[in-house]
This record gives sequence, structure tokens and C-alpha cells, in this order.
Amino acid sequence: MNRIAVLGSTGSIGTQTLELVRCLPEQLQVVALAAGRNTRLLSEQIAEFRPRLYHSLLPDRVDAGDAILATPDEMACAEDVDTLVVATSGSAGLLPTLTALEHGKRVALANKEVLVIAGDLVMEAARCNDGEIMPLDSEHSAVWQCLRGEGGAIRRLYLTASGGPFYGWPDERLRGVRAVDALAHPVWSMGRKITVDSATMMNKGLEVIEAHHLFDVPYSDIDILIHRECIVHSMVEFIDGSIKAQLGVPDMMLPIQYALTYPQRRASGAPRLDLTRPLVFNFEPADERHFRAIALAREAGRRGMTYPAVLCGADEAAIELFLQDRIAFLDIVALVEDALDAHKVVTKPGLTELADAERWARQRVMSRSSGDAGRGSLQLGTEHDD
Amino acid sequence: MNRIAVLGSTGSIGTQTLELVRCLPEQLQVVALAAGRNTRLLSEQIAEFRPRLYHSLLPDRVDAGDAILATPDEMACAEDVDTLVVATSGSAGLLPTLTALEHGKRVALANKEVLVIAGDLVMEAARCNDGEIMPLDSEHSAVWQCLRGEGGAIRRLYLTASGGPFYGWPDERLRGVRAVDALAHPVWSMGRKITVDSATMMNKGLEVIEAHHLFDVPYSDIDILIHRECIVHSMVEFIDGSIKAQLGVPDMMLPIQYALTYPQRRASGAPRLDLTRPLVFNFEPADERHFRAIALAREAGRRGMTYPAVLCGADEAAIELFLQDRIAFLDIVALVEDALDAHKVVTKPGLTELADAERWARQRVMSRSSGDAGRGSLQLGTEHDD
Repeated sequence: MNRIAVLGSTGSIGTQTLELVRCLPEQLQVVALAAGRNTRLLSEQIAEFRPRLYHSLLPDRVDAGDAILATPDEMACAEDVDTLVVATSGSAGLLPTLTALEHGKRVALANKEVLVIAGDLVMEAARCNDGEIMPLDSEHSAVWQCLRGEGGAIRRLYLTASGGPFYGWPDERLRGVRAVDALAHPVWSMGRKITVDSATMMNKGLEVIEAHHLFDVPYSDIDILIHRECIVHSMVEFIDGSIKAQLGVPDMMLPIQYALTYPQRRASGAPRLDLTRPLVFNFEPADERHFRAIALAREAGRRGMTYPAVLCGADEAAIELFLQDRIAFLDIVALVEDALDAHKVVTKPGLTELADAERWARQRVMSRSSGDAGRGSLQLGTEHDD
Repeated sequence: MNRIAVLGSTGSIGTQTLELVRCLPEQLQVVALAAGRNTRLLSEQIAEFRPRLYHSLLPDRVDAGDAILATPDEMACAEDVDTLVVATSGSAGLLPTLTALEHGKRVALANKEVLVIAGDLVMEAARCNDGEIMPLDSEHSAVWQCLRGEGGAIRRLYLTASGGPFYGWPDERLRGVRAVDALAHPVWSMGRKITVDSATMMNKGLEVIEAHHLFDVPYSDIDILIHRECIVHSMVEFIDGSIKAQLGVPDMMLPIQYALTYPQRRASGAPRLDLTRPLVFNFEPADERHFRAIALAREAGRRGMTYPAVLCGADEAAIELFLQDRIAFLDIVALVEDALDAHKVVTKPGLTELADAERWARQRVMSRSSGDAGRGSLQLGTEHDD
């Protein structure tokens, strides 16, 4: 029995995690549920899963029954929690992740920012306390599955990318993209922020940084392959030249289940890849001159220190502005680049310095765009260079 | 250090095994070499690798230096042999394989007939004596690599097939195929018998039977996928719906190295898959109504007992006739089917009964085709049904 606390239980990964609990009641038990402002859904979840602990930003509006109000950090170190599911977005998941790892627990991690902002601190906490990080996103789950039973010997990682909804579009056309276009991802159904990240390909840049930390692979040995079919979720090349890939229909249920039942695999009702009909897989390397977001993220990761926090803070703020139709699509990455360029790095940052850097980057983005009447009016001098 | 005996050292897999020894002199040592009639190459190999033991069908013509003449069976149980590499073709590898397993040794198996004819006996010998079988052919090596670290939980195996040189040809055109055409495989460079098996797709049928024994998977859960690009060497679907695939350039050096350095992976100079340029992979299920050889092999495997021995004996004899231009291409499979139909099965066969069944099938094929003046003149009443 794996006893779980779910941070972000009303979000996309959170609700799918609870759907999995419904399918595997003998294997999974919900001990704690934390959500933000969706008090109605949280109340329903509490009624159904009867957790011991709950958290909400608006606790007065939650119908909590016998559940006890607690902070995410208290959930992360509760004795009856085996696995902390971090399905929040942004940097909110960082402290509970560190707490859970310091208590030698498992962290099932869907949140990209945690590892991007504080990868060194997080991996160090896992190493020193026998904590474990189980990636929930499909690419890192694929790499993790391919590495199963292998004693390292990695030569290269190939993270696959759908290419997003605007793959192959010229800049001219990208200039006209609005929030409503970017939110319509052709394959994956995800939250709003990550869907826009997927359109700018910043999500792949963040995944490169995560993969670097999770699997201890140098940045130069992590490539992005465009794979429009979204069936091959990633690949690992070993030093002998052998490559292993993990495949499946694009559905988050599988990586969530893999992480929460690991090391067992359990039969599931998840949709299966249909190999009784012809299939075609295409792969091509992502041109990082074109996908500027990947190059920026890779460079921020390479430099380390507070740069990845700036990347995250700037990206999050820019996406908020884009979703409010206050900046143009191409401004998102331009604003991130501007913040990285202007950043005064802090060496050997702790949590405070990382949070400061992220906040500084958010403010920088907000200030650069304030006063603009509408979309496409930024003049940052850093144009998408294709 | 893995000390190896190579049976079939002058053949395709044998010479590649020795090439690997040249690359990994710190990891591999040749203790014994056995060949058939190619005494010149064997003499050169003995001079280079200085094995303690050698074997030849024409020992008088071998320049053996200090090496001692021994039987393959003596090599299989020699104290200083860790791994027996069985790279012979036909059933010659069967007895040494059993001997090595009974002595708790590893057997690196390239020979298909060993498992096809006597899979039950061979796997039983491995189980009872802690012997290990490491598959050398690319498909089973791929499955083996995908299963690494997994605790079973297999739902389905997908063995890939190039489709051979005549993929998509109508029967009319296949009728005119001669030995010289069948020997020109578009991708893999292999021995003559296996190249023809690849053209009839009988090789995939034999691989289904091998996979059944090696991985303890029911016949109904093993599928063949046509994959013309020969990059994905096979796939495993697990009960949770996750699929793992092993990829690489089509080159036998990789599976040979994997088996002989297992569980380590070693850097090698083997050609790498180039993922810096666009790649397309196609898959489609093999239609077993069209690929009659696969259906016959699957059925022979399902029935078990002496049927797989008949399959092997009949196939080998028919290919000999075809290579002598004495029967037509389509007659190969028709003769195998005729032998299977006519066979009087022996239940619970031992080695003697299996050898008898194989010999009977060879003779049956020879007798059915004798008296025919040339190619395409057989009237077996079992036509290729497409």
C-alpha cells in the first residue's frame, strides 16, 4: 500500500492521480489533499477519499468533514505519508519537496520548476537522506523506464517533443498567435501554463534541465527530437550504441501509475497503443537556432546558480501577460532572454537567493511590458532570430 | 574476464565474435575454437587467439600449434570456459548447449534450431542448473534488453521483421525467384541458410518459437511487425500498457557484445544510429495468411512435441534443394507444410526422438522433391494461399 499526499489535487495531474486511486484502491491510499482556490472540487475529493489532512488557500470555504487543516510542508513530513505527489505549478512545490526528501520519502514530481530552479539542492537532499524522486512527466518517466536495471552507462538522452501547435510556422505567422490558439494543443491535454510552454518549446528547455539533474547527464549529452506523433516518449543511448525507447499512447495516466506503483507494474485500463494497424514515427532533431527557448534554457542550465530561477520566473510572468493578451506570442521568449541578459547572478544560492532571483525576474518582465497598450508592442531588441 | 568457447568460429557470428575479442582483449579470452571444414581460417584464428582447445571436422588439415583437439561437448563442460558461444547452424549446437547449461555455464546462443527443436529440454536444463542463455540474435537481444530490470509483467512481445528482399511481391513474381535473388538480403549480412529463411519469413516463425521459450510468453502474445528500416529490433509491451523498444543500426556486433559483456555495457566502435538527421520508422503487422511460414512455425510451436523438429528438418532440407536450384522458392514453405501434415507426432520426446523427427522430415522433403527435373515442378497440393 502506497500512502500518498497530493499537492495540487484539483489540477490536471492531481485529478488524474485521484482517478488512478479509484482504479487501484488496494495499492493506493490518499492521506492528504492540498489545493488552491478550487474549494468545491476539493470538498468533493475530501468527501470521496477521506484524507486525514487537507490544505486550501481558502479553508473556510472547504467542506472538510473530519479532515484536519495542514500546510503542504506538514503533509510532506507526515509519518503516514509514503509518497508526496507534487502536482502544483510554479515554485510552490519546492519547499514540500525538500521536506519530503529530507524525511527519506518518495516524491512523485510533476512540477517542472522544482528541479529547474533548485535541482542541485533537491538532488542533494535526495542523495543525503535516501529520498527518491519519481518523475511524472512522460519524457522523464520514459528515460527512467529505459534506465531501469541499467547501471548507468548512458551516452546520450533523446527527449522527444511534439513540436507544439505551431510547428513549422514562420515568424510572420507566429506574430499573430493569440492565447486562444496557444491553448489548443494538438495532442496533450494539460494546464494553461504548460500548454503555452509547449507552444514556445520552453517546456523542452525546462525538461533538458530536469533531465540533467534527474539522471546526472551533462547538458551536451541531452538532445531534443521533434516527434509529431507523440508515441515515443523519449530514448536513451548507452555507451555500447544500444538505444532504448519507451512508447505508448500520449496519456499521463501511465507515467503517474508507473511512479506510484513502482517497482511493480500493474494492469490498467489505460488506452493501449494499437499495433494492429500501420504506424509511422517521424523524428528530426530540434533546431535550437529556431527554437530559441530551448537554447536559452540549456544555457541557463549550463550556467546554473540563479539563472534557472530567472528563466522560470520570467517565463511564468511572460506567459501570464500573454494569456491576458498584453504581449505577443514571440514576446514571451524575448522577455525571458531579456531577463537572463540583465540578471546579476548570485553564486552558491540557497532557497532565499533562488526565490529572490525568481521574483526579480517576474518583476523585470512586468516592468518591461507595463505601459504597453496591447499585443506585439514590445521593443526589446531581441527578436526571434529565424 | 569472460572466457569463451566459440562453436562455429569461421561462420558469420563466429568471426564477428572474434572481432569483438580483438576490441575487448581485457574482457574476453578465447579458450576454445570449433569450426567445420574451413580449416584455413580456423588455423589463422588459432594462431591469433591461441585457444587451449580446438575442433574441426578435418583436424588433419588444421595448423593447431599447441591447441588440443577436443569435441564441442568437451569444450562445453571445460572448467576454464565461462561462456559457450553457439554460432553453428542446424542442430549441431544442441548437445553442447545442453552440456554447458547442465554445468551451470552461460550459453550465448546464435543458433535458432537449438531452442526451436528442443526448447523445453534446453530451458529445463538452464533452470535446473542455474545455467543462463543469452540470445545473440538482434530480436531476442532487443527483448532481453527491454526486460532488463523488469520483473516480468509482460503483456505482449513485438518481434520486428525487415520483410526480406521480396516484401510485397505477388506470388506470380515469387515463383520466379532463384537462389541468387534470395541470397541478396537488403539489410542484414548473414549466412546462406538464414538469408533464405529471411526471404521466406521462416526466420520470424523460428524466432516466435525461440521467444516463447526464452521469455516464457504464450504464442498468442507474440506478434510480428514488419519494419522495413530494421532500426527497432523488437518491443515489449508490459501489463500497464507501457512499451519498451530497443533500437540501433542493424549490426550483429551490438547483440554479441551485449551478451558477452553482460551485465556491463562497454563503449564500442560499433556504428551508431545517426539521430542528427530525420528518421522515419514504419511498422505494420505481418499478415500471417500471406506469410505462411510464420503461421506454420507458430502452429508447430503451439503443438510442440516433435513438430518443431520436423519444421526445422524440413526447412533446412528444402533450403538446400532451393540453393541447388532443384525446387522453386515457393516450394520451400510448401514442403515444410507437407512434412508437418504427414508427421506422426511423438509425445514427450527426448533427444533421440527429436533427432529422429528432424531426420525423418529431411528425408520426407528429399523424397518429395526427388525425380523432379528442375525448379517449380512440385505438385504438393499446398499452394501459397495469397
